[in-house]
Amino acid sequence: MNLLKGKNGIIFGALNEQSIAWQVALAAVEQGANIVLTNTPLALRMGEVDKLAQLCNAPVIAADATSVEDLEALVDGAMAHFGGKIDFVLHSVGMSPNVRKNIPYQQLNYDFFSKTLDISAVSFHKVMSVLYNKRAMNEWGSIVALTYLAAQRIVVGYNDMADAKALLESEARSFGAIFGRDFKVRVNTISQSPTPTTAGNGVKGMKTMLDFAQAMSPLGNADAKDCANYCVTLFSDLTRKVTMQNLYHDGGFSSMGLSEAVYEIFLNNEH
Amino acid sequence: MNLLKGKNGIIFGALNEQSIAWQVALAAVEQGANIVLTNTPLALRMGEVDKLAQLCNAPVIAADATSVEDLEALVDGAMAHFGGKIDFVLHSVGMSPNVRKNIPYQQLNYDFFSKTLDISAVSFHKVMSVLYNKRAMNEWGSIVALTYLAAQRIVVGYNDMADAKALLESEARSFGAIFGRDFKVRVNTISQSPTPTTAGNGVKGMKTMLDFAQAMSPLGNADAKDCANYCVTLFSDLTRKVTMQNLYHDGGFSSMGLSEAVYEIFLNNEH
Amino acid sequence: MNLLKGKNGIIFGALNEQSIAWQVALAAVEQGANIVLTNTPLALRMGEVDKLAQLCNAPVIAADATSVEDLEALVDGAMAHFGGKIDFVLHSVGMSPNVRKNIPYQQLNYDFFSKTLDISAVSFHKVMSVLYNKRAMNEWGSIVALTYLAAQRIVVGYNDMADAKALLESEARSFGAIFGRDFKVRVNTISQSPTPTTAGNGVKGMKTMLDFAQAMSPLGNADAKDCANYCVTLFSDLTRKVTMQNLYHDGGFSSMGLSEAVYEIFLNNEH
Amino acid sequence: MNLLKGKNGIIFGALNEQSIAWQVALAAVEQGANIVLTNTPLALRMGEVDKLAQLCNAPVIAADATSVEDLEALVDGAMAHFGGKIDFVLHSVGMSPNVRKNIPYQQLNYDFFSKTLDISAVSFHKVMSVLYNKRAMNEWGSIVALTYLAAQRIVVGYNDMADAKALLESEARSFGAIFGRDFKVRVNTISQSPTPTTAGNGVKGMKTMLDFAQAMSPLGNADAKDCANYCVTLFSDLTRKVTMQNLYHDGGFSSMGLSEAVYEIFLNNEH
Repeated sequence: MNLLKGKNGIIFGALNEQSIAWQVALAAVEQGANIVLTNTPLALRMGEVDKLAQLCNAPVIAADATSVEDLEALVDGAMAHFGGKIDFVLHSVGMSPNVRKNIPYQQLNYDFFSKTLDISAVSFHKVMSVLYNKRAMNEWGSIVALTYLAAQRIVVGYNDMADAKALLESEARSFGAIFGRDFKVRVNTISQSPTPTTAGNGVKGMKTMLDFAQAMSPLGNADAKDCANYCVTLFSDLTRKVTMQNLYHDGGFSSMGLSEAVYEIFLNNEH
Repeated sequence: MNLLKGKNGIIFGALNEQSIAWQVALAAVEQGANIVLTNTPLALRMGEVDKLAQLCNAPVIAADATSVEDLEALVDGAMAHFGGKIDFVLHSVGMSPNVRKNIPYQQLNYDFFSKTLDISAVSFHKVMSVLYNKRAMNEWGSIVALTYLAAQRIVVGYNDMADAKALLESEARSFGAIFGRDFKVRVNTISQSPTPTTAGNGVKGMKTMLDFAQAMSPLGNADAKDCANYCVTLFSDLTRKVTMQNLYHDGGFSSMGLSEAVYEIFLNNEH
Repeated sequence: MNLLKGKNGIIFGALNEQSIAWQVALAAVEQGANIVLTNTPLALRMGEVDKLAQLCNAPVIAADATSVEDLEALVDGAMAHFGGKIDFVLHSVGMSPNVRKNIPYQQLNYDFFSKTLDISAVSFHKVMSVLYNKRAMNEWGSIVALTYLAAQRIVVGYNDMADAKALLESEARSFGAIFGRDFKVRVNTISQSPTPTTAGNGVKGMKTMLDFAQAMSPLGNADAKDCANYCVTLFSDLTRKVTMQNLYHDGGFSSMGLSEAVYEIFLNNEH
Repeated sequence: MNLLKGKNGIIFGALNEQSIAWQVALAAVEQGANIVLTNTPLALRMGEVDKLAQLCNAPVIAADATSVEDLEALVDGAMAHFGGKIDFVLHSVGMSPNVRKNIPYQQLNYDFFSKTLDISAVSFHKVMSVLYNKRAMNEWGSIVALTYLAAQRIVVGYNDMADAKALLESEARSFGAIFGRDFKVRVNTISQSPTPTTAGNGVKGMKTMLDFAQAMSPLGNADAKDCANYCVTLFSDLTRKVTMQNLYHDGGFSSMGLSEAVYEIFLNNEH
């Protein structure tokens, strides 16, 4: 449908086919976009990004999203590649050493907590700051970051990532106010259903979380391909006045208190 | 503690000991308030309000909360009894003929829906309108209505009462803006845990809803006495600047996505 | 771009070029949709819907959205015209006799209030109920109603329409839970910037409200054409898992506390 | 009224009479509580905490809230002083070097941003973590932190403190889920009107912000003494089931879109 024809985008965070960012890259290219892929050097070695790069006819530029220097080189490299400014950006970056090491929230290691915030949230500010200060975004461009409902409602096992996502969502509002006012660029977050990515599967009890969310959501969980489609609409010119929003993309989970399916499981459990 | 010493209040909706309004009446009087009790003529015949009236040394004035005429007589009667204006009001009124007759939401009877809205929500506007137009509230008075989370998040079986509560909460904001500006009176709603009152028990599957809410809430469900205590704080002079708020009183339910206890039940269910 | 190619939709509420529904009709047809237009007999006489019908090559079926009978005839007529089921619906219907007659919120006429709710909110339930019970929606269909921020935050002059919009938004969640579960149909509301439509201009002080919103919103107010584009994304297959949401389409207004532009006006006012 | 009779509390952040924490300390003692005051060594030298300590008959224990070691000594010292566990805690701690040095949000110094988060938000986790791991809280205890609406809605000049407050509020939910489940302790945040404290006055344009908030709020801004009263209710046994909430204490500001007073100023500005 060429919804993104002639648009240039940077996609952070594709690792393998399970990644939401992987599906976003494919969908964006299918809609006519030119893209640049980026991830950390380590992720580039461990994942299959080269395969995606071939499918998307896209260069890969390594960058640690916590390094302003790396981000500057990335944005310069992307603009050189595109021969112009950038229209859309996907931030799909997050990691918690506390989660990885099964440290419970009440005993957080504070160096790790600082890393969680730095990698999962402050990186988003850095990305936007580099784009802003280089005047790298075209007017009516669109910046999107992925987040999760735990930023509002506590989910067992999500740990300090809940706080990181709350910080990320606040940065989207804070920078969105400035990016909108100065460059007509919008900034939003998508609060996605739990998704069985490599990162998601690292969260303990992921399968049960998925089952619970599936039973609670009238339309079932949104998957990575669904999310990619939704991102396409947010990158397109059809959503120009949507900004500073946290957009739930979750089959209805966020607006449910108790579904029939969950009710039935509880009823059975009582017997 | 005499938190409401010298204050005059009207309490709608006490039926029997299970009623939240019953507990609010007892707590208010214990804190030094003078109160007037009110309910519909039918409820006064079927319930045990006379017993409460004795315990509270309070007159009972029958009023149909959907009748402006009745409400005017009630407010006049209350002011005559108190020899002065009113400091606090509790609206605990709600009923859905659709729920009573097990008519599913997708087949609502519209006469019944209109009744649900009229009894459960428009009545609150009428109460406030009579109080406002009679200038019956003292400065820094407090008006509270009871509501439920289904106004934001759908709960199976709650049916058109969810919509009625959303309307009620909006009226609290709408009238709160005016009552605050003109008379320094605050208006709030308390979004209470599911509570096994006579009305609550009329909702199909109430026991399972209670179990689910209990398992999800870190502090467990708030009961009628807890709610009465919370009302006391909102009627007192200690919360003068809280207005136009929907205040969750639910042991944390509203801020939970998935608790450990619910997780465990789902995990067992998978096996 | 043919985003709605082969899709069938019903558009409520187009009156003239200023109408959001008018722009949605044009945009939907431009994206390849077949549509049916509807409005009340009175609106059809007073407005210019015939002109729109020609532009859209669409039949016009008169229907009073408060009449289940009319809505049944409309849905039957639309399905006959399409030779198939319906993929999307826009509800853009609202009217308050209290607003029209400048009756302040604290003195609402309750017959009028009942009409406000019936026309502006209960009509949406009726539309969905008829669609549901006739099994008239295709799987993954999309139903959208237009609303306004006053449902959450009080705006002077919006009066009882604020309450009606809160009720409407609740119905979207309530019916969305059922429509999703049973037919994979999504239901959302768009909370649009104040828009200078014929209805909008009926609200007293509309110009100043528009100026205030413009000064507060980083991207400025969203207009009717912007809203039409956003509706297209919500009707398309790219947003299948978004449901039961109230989606702010307002240039960022809803996420602002105080913008620089509003600050400057206040600063000047102090001097 | 002895609402806190026999209760033991720790109050962070009193500096001088303008401080909210100062007023909370006075109000808590007036209600019968025993308290311990704490602040950084620097603040203790620069402020007038000794005067408050005399008024409250309370020891002062210096602690840097970013130091787990200091917090452990504080909690040990407080329990030794009380001869028992703790019932309530007020966290009123925040500082942004970026705000102090007028560095705009789009050019944040990241070392400073890290400090903002560490001092204003991570400190709250550390306080709770020390209390949790020392099992220092009595059952049904209450922990409160002060926050501001900028965490949800952007306010010019509030800069990276908005993000810090969003992080703080998330920590209240995250730790509230655990503290509730394990020790029946509640954790909430109060989202206070802008308040002319020493810290508040450090925000550029504070006077205009205050004027705007005053004009927008039906009950006017809540001041430090109002906030102290509200804290008393949250520390008392009357609010035992309120947890994981962000409670707006702002005269209605958070539920306003446009007040008459702001409307009038805009109308004049147009002329």
